[in-house]
Amino acid sequence: MTDFDYDFVVIGGGPAGRRAAIQASKLGKTVAIVDDQKKIGGVSVHTGTLPSKTIRESVLSVTGWRDQYFKSGRQRSGPDVTRDSISSRLSTTLGDEVEVIDSQLSRNNIETLKGRAKFAGPNKLSVSQSVQGKTTTYTVTAEKFLIAVGTKPYRPKHIPFNGSTIVDSDSIAANMPMPKSIVVVGGGVIGLEYATIFSTLEIPVTVVEARENILEFIDRDIIANFTHQLSERGISLRLGRSIKTIDVDKNGNPQVELDDGRQLRSEMLLFTAGRVGAVDKLGLEKIGIEPDSRGRLTVDPETLQTSQSHIYAAGDIIGFPALASTSMEQGRLAACHAFGHPIKSSEHSFPLGIYSIPEIASIGMSEDEARSKGMQVEIGIARFQETSRGHILGNCKGLLKCIFDLNDRKLLGVHIVGEGATELIHIGQAVLNLNGGIDYLSGTVFNFPTLAEAYKVAALDAYNRMPQTRLRA
Amino acid sequence: MTDFDYDFVVIGGGPAGRRAAIQASKLGKTVAIVDDQKKIGGVSVHTGTLPSKTIRESVLSVTGWRDQYFKSGRQRSGPDVTRDSISSRLSTTLGDEVEVIDSQLSRNNIETLKGRAKFAGPNKLSVSQSVQGKTTTYTVTAEKFLIAVGTKPYRPKHIPFNGSTIVDSDSIAANMPMPKSIVVVGGGVIGLEYATIFSTLEIPVTVVEARENILEFIDRDIIANFTHQLSERGISLRLGRSIKTIDVDKNGNPQVELDDGRQLRSEMLLFTAGRVGAVDKLGLEKIGIEPDSRGRLTVDPETLQTSQSHIYAAGDIIGFPALASTSMEQGRLAACHAFGHPIKSSEHSFPLGIYSIPEIASIGMSEDEARSKGMQVEIGIARFQETSRGHILGNCKGLLKCIFDLNDRKLLGVHIVGEGATELIHIGQAVLNLNGGIDYLSGTVFNFPTLAEAYKVAALDAYNRMPQTRLRA
Repeated sequence: MTDFDYDFVVIGGGPAGRRAAIQASKLGKTVAIVDDQKKIGGVSVHTGTLPSKTIRESVLSVTGWRDQYFKSGRQRSGPDVTRDSISSRLSTTLGDEVEVIDSQLSRNNIETLKGRAKFAGPNKLSVSQSVQGKTTTYTVTAEKFLIAVGTKPYRPKHIPFNGSTIVDSDSIAANMPMPKSIVVVGGGVIGLEYATIFSTLEIPVTVVEARENILEFIDRDIIANFTHQLSERGISLRLGRSIKTIDVDKNGNPQVELDDGRQLRSEMLLFTAGRVGAVDKLGLEKIGIEPDSRGRLTVDPETLQTSQSHIYAAGDIIGFPALASTSMEQGRLAACHAFGHPIKSSEHSFPLGIYSIPEIASIGMSEDEARSKGMQVEIGIARFQETSRGHILGNCKGLLKCIFDLNDRKLLGVHIVGEGATELIHIGQAVLNLNGGIDYLSGTVFNFPTLAEAYKVAALDAYNRMPQTRLRA
Repeated sequence: MTDFDYDFVVIGGGPAGRRAAIQASKLGKTVAIVDDQKKIGGVSVHTGTLPSKTIRESVLSVTGWRDQYFKSGRQRSGPDVTRDSISSRLSTTLGDEVEVIDSQLSRNNIETLKGRAKFAGPNKLSVSQSVQGKTTTYTVTAEKFLIAVGTKPYRPKHIPFNGSTIVDSDSIAANMPMPKSIVVVGGGVIGLEYATIFSTLEIPVTVVEARENILEFIDRDIIANFTHQLSERGISLRLGRSIKTIDVDKNGNPQVELDDGRQLRSEMLLFTAGRVGAVDKLGLEKIGIEPDSRGRLTVDPETLQTSQSHIYAAGDIIGFPALASTSMEQGRLAACHAFGHPIKSSEHSFPLGIYSIPEIASIGMSEDEARSKGMQVEIGIARFQETSRGHILGNCKGLLKCIFDLNDRKLLGVHIVGEGATELIHIGQAVLNLNGGIDYLSGTVFNFPTLAEAYKVAALDAYNRMPQTRLRA
């Protein structure tokens, strides 16, 4: 083992890679991260998760969205003020984040190697770095590796991307555009996050999605409420519609033709239909690892090993769910397995958080899923307007739905739409994963006033309708 | 039973009374609430809990406090703008709340009798109502009663209350003052909530508290952090100091002399040192119920019965903890017991939520409490600045502390200071009450970015220091 430069080399400094590196270091191993970005952090810090959430928070603040119920005629800030405010908040937040990451890595004695990694053999990487036009290449060896290179936007050849009026999601963070109108292609998580951000800025938005439904993994009542909120705010959702052509007119504006012949015109087009693994220059062919058609790697779900047992993969590169949260846990599992301390992958279901405006979050089964399994369920619904905190925040459009098993009274799933949903879901997650149910939630004392009280309201709602307890409600 | 006008009459329309009334109605009983306020809701809606939380939210919004990290030179709104904004938000929020309460009561067929209630016999109330100077009195009989009349501010004779420069907390909600400086007497929950609200408005605040420590029921690390934040913001805390005299000078300004001879001058004085039960005109002497020296009633903690078994009491009137949240649960328990469906009072510990700026929340044991019981504990600390959501919110001063039992690895207590604390505590509450511990919290996937992640950071912090697991961290 002492023949290698390091015990563990991680390719990619995103959430999966960093968590794995820290874990290996805590196990006493020598660790390096190879990353080709100017600053550590991966897509998560620089163009994806954090920038979009920071832009979101900045837009909520600039527009006073959270207080809108109490403001009759709040002035809309001009686009320059908005853009400046977003960009200064982005640079502060991402700067703070990079600082925390750097200090975390150095505290754990993890080296960061700048450059592009390429496998030159089973235990050997060549790392190339370009400085002022000159490329230097050196070699690094390690006993074990983790591939955590993430993904990049899928850019089909027939879309005339131009970086200004036709863009992908990675380019938005660099320079927040303020177009007079926008078409968003793709009604997935990324598309809806940006669509609702633009709409909050009072920019007219049209979303085109080929499927008949958005966010099919979320409970239908939540999506119905969410869709209703979007349409109330004037977002046009074109579901079940695919793109025939995308062109640029003589003024540089995008022109879209849909499969039904309808034309969409706007000042800008954001293409968010899919991402592909960033594996093309990794030299995987040299070591016998074969990505699938979308650049994803296949791993043993228990151990995170690729077909080469000393090479692990984690994060977006291994596909669903491709969330920073799950990626970190995969990184931890991979490092523990690699260095002789295997821990069981949690059998607990993981939460989903969507940072649209408003937020959506979910844990466990949807009502449809439970019923399709033949389970007898009781449903409890609480509207945020049934809580006093909802009135105080003026934030009355939220909805929380609990699904209980009628037989053992356990909680099967929770689904929330509304501001704060991504935090609130973790109460339901704890109850669900620790085998609590309707008796816990209906008998629990919640702080008053909180949105968390919605759990009790929902539990009592279900309780009052359960046949065996009707009288005791 | 049919000899009575109602099965159940509740005196007081606050959280305890309303919850009890709804519960009794769901059990098929005829129910009335007697309330002497113009509008239903009790202190909780009209002068206490909700107004202070609404003023708080309004002040956070007007001052841009939540975004302060990102604003270099935000202008302070003039006092008129601030006062208008607070009063319009108050009237909207409290109006919405009263509407919800009215509709809840009418949906449940609960009658509301306006007027002042006085016992005229064991099963008989006289209710007096003054309309345009004329007092009408009528009689109402019931099989069972609930006394849920709440409390009013304690106003010692030697304090020259004048409703303008020397006031109690109940009078603030009616007309939010904007003095140039304020002295707050009493460093309890109410005093600190208002002290931090005034300070956020950049009004100089001095808090005088006779005890050496504030909030003694909260973990000391949390209070140290909170106290540090207050002093950074320029709030002057005079602990262990009692009041010798309070006078008004010739300009109407309060003058305070402390026991150490120090003088405090300010434009306004808020007296928050205690509340007393609002029992003086209830005619309790007629039915053999005797309040204590502070107007509190003693009840059987399991059943909520007073010394008269058909008369129950719940809410602030029975003393600690005197929170809207616990009062509601007491109301529910009382009604269930009164009508033959006793449910066990939850053995779960209840949460504490303090709506100061920033919030404080707590569940279970403090570190001192656990150690004083001879338990072996491990502590996990997370700062909000260790979470990405903390950076995005710019809200980096929060702290979350978990206390784990070293032997069975269970969670014993959670204590939080920081915005969102009152909501976040419910995750810890579920883990604690459902017997989860360090393995649940360290292995759980949290949405990214959330403040909830602080639980995982704290759990891993403790995990890495636990002797038996040091290597596996």
